[in-house]
Amino acid sequence: MIGIKSIASYVPTAGIDNYAQGAKFGKDDEFILGKIGSAFLPRKDQAQETSDLCVEAVNALFAANPQLKRESIDALIVITQNGDEDGLPHTSAIVQDKLGLPTHVAAFDISLGCSGYVYGLYAIKGFMEAAGLKNGLLVTADPYSKIVDPEDRNTTMLFGDAATATWMGEDAVWQLGKAKFGTDGSGAPHLKVNDGVFFMNGRQVFNFALIKVPAHLHELLDDSGLQSADIDAFCIHQGSAAIVDAVARRFEGEPEKFVKDMLETGNTVSSSIPLLLEKHLDNGSWKRVALSGFGVGLSWGSAIIYRQ
Amino acid sequence: MIGIKSIASYVPTAGIDNYAQGAKFGKDDEFILGKIGSAFLPRKDQAQETSDLCVEAVNALFAANPQLKRESIDALIVITQNGDEDGLPHTSAIVQDKLGLPTHVAAFDISLGCSGYVYGLYAIKGFMEAAGLKNGLLVTADPYSKIVDPEDRNTTMLFGDAATATWMGEDAVWQLGKAKFGTDGSGAPHLKVNDGVFFMNGRQVFNFALIKVPAHLHELLDDSGLQSADIDAFCIHQGSAAIVDAVARRFEGEPEKFVKDMLETGNTVSSSIPLLLEKHLDNGSWKRVALSGFGVGLSWGSAIIYRQ
Repeated sequence: MIGIKSIASYVPTAGIDNYAQGAKFGKDDEFILGKIGSAFLPRKDQAQETSDLCVEAVNALFAANPQLKRESIDALIVITQNGDEDGLPHTSAIVQDKLGLPTHVAAFDISLGCSGYVYGLYAIKGFMEAAGLKNGLLVTADPYSKIVDPEDRNTTMLFGDAATATWMGEDAVWQLGKAKFGTDGSGAPHLKVNDGVFFMNGRQVFNFALIKVPAHLHELLDDSGLQSADIDAFCIHQGSAAIVDAVARRFEGEPEKFVKDMLETGNTVSSSIPLLLEKHLDNGSWKRVALSGFGVGLSWGSAIIYRQ
Repeated sequence: MIGIKSIASYVPTAGIDNYAQGAKFGKDDEFILGKIGSAFLPRKDQAQETSDLCVEAVNALFAANPQLKRESIDALIVITQNGDEDGLPHTSAIVQDKLGLPTHVAAFDISLGCSGYVYGLYAIKGFMEAAGLKNGLLVTADPYSKIVDPEDRNTTMLFGDAATATWMGEDAVWQLGKAKFGTDGSGAPHLKVNDGVFFMNGRQVFNFALIKVPAHLHELLDDSGLQSADIDAFCIHQGSAAIVDAVARRFEGEPEKFVKDMLETGNTVSSSIPLLLEKHLDNGSWKRVALSGFGVGLSWGSAIIYRQ
């Protein structure tokens, strides 16, 4: 069984002071901290392509796992909706070359936004098991600085650039349990790109998250024969502090188990959940974690992962 | 085990007379028939989006399989590098809505070109098995008319628009056997979009296909413990008549088993292999078929499918 062996990340050190940015839009520190949740928004260098962020994250993964050799990688999935080169070729092919991975790698991109990591875990596990592959890299990199208008107060205070890399393979400590997914394209207009610029209807997205996510997590627990008390932590997409708080409250379980940690990263799209897992999965105190990603599509996905 | 239950397609009836187009570039009918292989290149209507082609193909699949109900669909993957809306949101979300599929569908796009169907088969089978899903749609739609320059003699005589839909589920007659994949991003510049216009280095792509594909098929047969005589047909990507002929010759097996059928479609990117399978899988004479897709990335994938 393919599971999660290790997670690493790349977060640019340069970025934007969100208090200063908030002041520009007449927002005080309380709003930035309490509603947005992020004091600092990392920004890639203009010259860095999406593939470069992927390469940094994978190199961090190799550095943290010296036993993992480049030659042993046989699967690579990049989750992005803001890839290199207008998306043709796929970013994962460029990453294969920049990393010097062997040419027997099966590489493709998955187009998903904030729900992407949850889908990606099952996509790469399933693909590897169906194709008999052994060591896969699940990479997330969706730098919204490419598409966010710095004058759009609805989006520019929210998003941060980051990338993560997850090593998927045999004999993993963390295994994938049950998952549930959903898609509602009738809500596509609420989060989309128009002529290269990102548009978000924040109220609609907030309502969507509040209506869908707590109920979806309850359904997942029911399907898994579990209760909220069986879950050590809820690592949901860090859309904003307000969204995480509202989902935690509406869930009516143990709100303190909902991890909120975006102070120095902002909303990093498909990287937000693996950034949380990278920090906490190895600390030994968590045995079972619930994930939920939600956003562009509209699309949502929730899953249970557990320590073997 | 999830396998291939049924395949349907949508090929626009409007299009381009390729003999007339060839004459414009000083190419005679022999070149169009013998080297290009396509007398007619289907073209979507300007007003049709990629999602509309997907919808047509899936509706054809529903029409051919009245026992398949929309409510029973729980997975949808669209393979495209020319989706709607600059790729954000993903085309599969728009397709979910236009088709009126239930919102419990797990939907995402895979970004791959001519190798996409072979990867897609293992991606959707694996994802469905990993997530416990029952009825999936694997859709291909990559209308190159969006990006091909009608004045570029290297590309405009080659590509046709089409879409296909494959129903994946339990108790399927056709099952997936072994597969092998490969990626070489150092060749990415040979097939790419520059400022919205597709560029192809035809000689480099031809050489790539000739060097990689026959050897890859032999490796796949070796890994599967099979010989060329055990394969009823080789359904490889229909890049051009010249490429199919050259790969068949270089394979040094039984060249007559390589299906060549692009006269009325052109190179339909990730739709070319399922268009062949749609025509022949049900006729009962094939028991074991080898597939190979190759192109943008550079990327390649080969697989054996077999009748259960």
